Amino acid sequence: MKLPRSIQQLITQFERLPGVGPKSAQRLTFYLLHVPESEIQKFADSLVAMKKNTKVCSRCHNVGEEDPCEICSDSTRDKSLLCIVEQPLDVLAIERSGKYDGLYHVLHGAISPLNNIGPDQLFLHDIVKRVHNIDEVILATNPTMEGEATAMYIQQLLAEGHPDVAITRIGHGLPIGADIEYADGITIARAMEGRRKM
Amino acid sequence: MKLPRSIQQLITQFERLPGVGPKSAQRLTFYLLHVPESEIQKFADSLVAMKKNTKVCSRCHNVGEEDPCEICSDSTRDKSLLCIVEQPLDVLAIERSGKYDGLYHVLHGAISPLNNIGPDQLFLHDIVKRVHNIDEVILATNPTMEGEATAMYIQQLLAEGHPDVAITRIGHGLPIGADIEYADGITIARAMEGRRKM
Repeated sequence: MKLPRSIQQLITQFERLPGVGPKSAQRLTFYLLHVPESEIQKFADSLVAMKKNTKVCSRCHNVGEEDPCEICSDSTRDKSLLCIVEQPLDVLAIERSGKYDGLYHVLHGAISPLNNIGPDQLFLHDIVKRVHNIDEVILATNPTMEGEATAMYIQQLLAEGHPDVAITRIGHGLPIGADIEYADGITIARAMEGRRKM
Repeated sequence: MKLPRSIQQLITQFERLPGVGPKSAQRLTFYLLHVPESEIQKFADSLVAMKKNTKVCSRCHNVGEEDPCEICSDSTRDKSLLCIVEQPLDVLAIERSGKYDGLYHVLHGAISPLNNIGPDQLFLHDIVKRVHNIDEVILATNPTMEGEATAMYIQQLLAEGHPDVAITRIGHGLPIGADIEYADGITIARAMEGRRKM
């Protein structure tokens, strides 16, 4: 027995999503078979609406409903600070911390030669232009190979264009609530390097 | 910063799917932000089409594109065998084994008082009528509390209506490729009970 074509097609669509394997795609599809048609229509509408109603901010490249985005057009934020992140979700995570009220710049990725992502595939080249009147650039790319390489690349880019601006890297070390016993060597090495006077 | 409304709505839709938590829902939504609009439209269309183009077979209650379904209308299948399963995915799994060529009956669930699912919420009552001219009914509900209770219920139902039909339960024991060392006690107990002469 083969699966009905329309079921097979939906399974294929789910399989394309990151982290969804063939089994999960099957499970999700058969789950939706039992969901009323109106709910399915709502789901389909949300998908299309999300794409239609969101814009990428022409200044910081964060996603939002307006251009310029909520953060870029907020006059109360500190315009002398610029935090560079890989993804829109990183902006959300940093905002949740409540510890930052400057501007952002979203790269939409990190330099990754293995995946054919070079500086030209990212929102990287307009950083130099944005750094006028900025005192500090915080590099908050991920502590991964790709994120570190991207941070290094931006540091060199800015060192040429703006030798006066302070460039910092977000702090690395043990996450709060962690057990030193279970931490990996690189994290402990970074935590030692980043130790501070009490 | 709050998330744009249309993004938040899609996250909420993903969160409703089984096994998708808030973090995965966020990740899936932001992944789709980078997918071209035409692909998103295809995904949305597949969702609606799946619901529109599938029918529940009026005989066996399996899902398919026709009513009666492919299996029920296949004249080469053994019409003296009836295998009762919980879900359409179970039909698919049994068909993949290549070891069964009888008919099916899909309950669309199992008796589960905790979730307010009784016999009336399942395709259960028409089984008695279907069992005319059938020699053997194989109960292939899951080896869970709910599946066992459902199998027991069906056995009593059939024992009253059709005392002549053979009622069997699908075999339980160690799955092929498993390690006895890691098997749980109940599985080993069932494997012992179900031992066969070599």
